[in-house]
Amino acid sequence: MADAVVTNRLDRRKARTRAALVTAARALLARDGGVDASIQEITELADVGFGSFYNHFQTKTELFEAAVAEALEEHGALLDRLTADLDDPAEVFAASVRLTVRLQKTHPQIARIMANTGQQYLGAPSGLAPRALRDIEAGAKAGRFDVGDAAVALACTGGSVLAAVHLLEGASSAKVDRTADEVATNLLRMFGMPTTEARAVARRPLPGTSRRRT
Amino acid sequence: MADAVVTNRLDRRKARTRAALVTAARALLARDGGVDASIQEITELADVGFGSFYNHFQTKTELFEAAVAEALEEHGALLDRLTADLDDPAEVFAASVRLTVRLQKTHPQIARIMANTGQQYLGAPSGLAPRALRDIEAGAKAGRFDVGDAAVALACTGGSVLAAVHLLEGASSAKVDRTADEVATNLLRMFGMPTTEARAVARRPLPGTSRRRT
Repeated sequence: MADAVVTNRLDRRKARTRAALVTAARALLARDGGVDASIQEITELADVGFGSFYNHFQTKTELFEAAVAEALEEHGALLDRLTADLDDPAEVFAASVRLTVRLQKTHPQIARIMANTGQQYLGAPSGLAPRALRDIEAGAKAGRFDVGDAAVALACTGGSVLAAVHLLEGASSAKVDRTADEVATNLLRMFGMPTTEARAVARRPLPGTSRRRT
Repeated sequence: MADAVVTNRLDRRKARTRAALVTAARALLARDGGVDASIQEITELADVGFGSFYNHFQTKTELFEAAVAEALEEHGALLDRLTADLDDPAEVFAASVRLTVRLQKTHPQIARIMANTGQQYLGAPSGLAPRALRDIEAGAKAGRFDVGDAAVALACTGGSVLAAVHLLEGASSAKVDRTADEVATNLLRMFGMPTTEARAVARRPLPGTSRRRT
C-alpha cells in the first residue's frame, strides 16, 4: 500500500516534469530561433533537472513535435465542441477554417507554432488534418461539396490555412477576421460552391466566439 | 595592373567559396535533419576552410535562406521561359502550379527544400510568390479569374502547392502528375472557373516538359 502511494507520487512527478518540458517547448516555439535553444536552456525554462529531459524525450525534435501535436489536438477538440450544433456541413467546415485562421489573434503562440512547423502535421493522425478530412467528406456526402480527390482537397485546405496564418503575423484583428472569411470563401468555391453562397456561408456568425477569448 | 589581376582572382575565389557553401546547404536541406549540421560539417561538405564561412554568412540560418532563395528563383525563371508563349493567363497560372508541384519528381531536392522551409518564402520579394501574384492579377485583369483579395489568393495558391508537394514525398510519378493537375483544377475553381473548364485548362499539354528532364 505504502509502495503504491510512493509509485503514484513518482508517476505524478514524472507526468509533471513531462508537462513542464512540453510547456517550455511551446513557449520556445513561439519565439524567433526558439528551436535553437539547448536542452539545458529548455530544462532551466521548465525548472526541471537537466537529466530528467532524457526520461521523457530522446531528442529536442521529439519534444517540439510533442508540443505542436498537443497544441493542435487541443484546438481541434475545441472546434469539435464549437461546431457540434451546426447542421450544415459547409458551415462546420467554414467555421473551423475561420476559427483556425483566427488563431493568429486569439492564440498567437499556437498560430506561430502552426505557421513554423505545421506543414509536417498535414498528414498527422491527430490534430486538425483528420478533422478537416472528416468535414470535407461530410460536405461531399451531403451534396454540399463537389470535391475530386479528398486527400488533395485536404492538402489545399491545410496549405491555404497555414499560409494565411503565416501571412497574418502581426496583422490587425480586423484584417485577421477579414482574411479568415476570405480563405473560407475561397475554399468553399474550390469545392464547387457559387461565389455568392460561399461568401454568405463564410460570414455567418461564428459559434462560441465570445467564449473563446478566455 | 598586377594588383587588379590579384584582386580579381581573390574575388573569383571568394565567389567560388560562397557558391560551394550554398551548394552544400542545398544538399543538406534535402536530408532529414540536414539543417542540424554544424558549420564545421557544412564547410567540410563544401570543401572550404571553416573560417571562410563567416566571410559570407553570419549564421547558419542565413546560409540556408540563401540556398532556398536561389533554388526558388531558379525555378521561377524557368517557369517564366516555359510559359512565355502561352496566350491564356489561366493556362500560364495552371502550368506554373503544375510544374511546381511536379518538382517532387523532376527535382526532388528543390521540392524537399520547398516543403521543409517554403512557408516563409510566401512573402518573399523574389522566387515564386511575386510571379504567382503577377499571374493571378493578369488572370483577373483578363477576366479569366474572379479573385477577391489578391494577397489571400496568393496565400491559398502557395499554401496549396506547398502542401501538395509535401503530401507527394515518395509518391509515384503518375500520382505526382495527377495531383499536380488536381491542385491546378482546385485553384482555378477557387478563382471562379466552372469545374469542367478548370479541369480542361489544368490538363492541357505542359510547355517544354520534354526539355525539363535534362
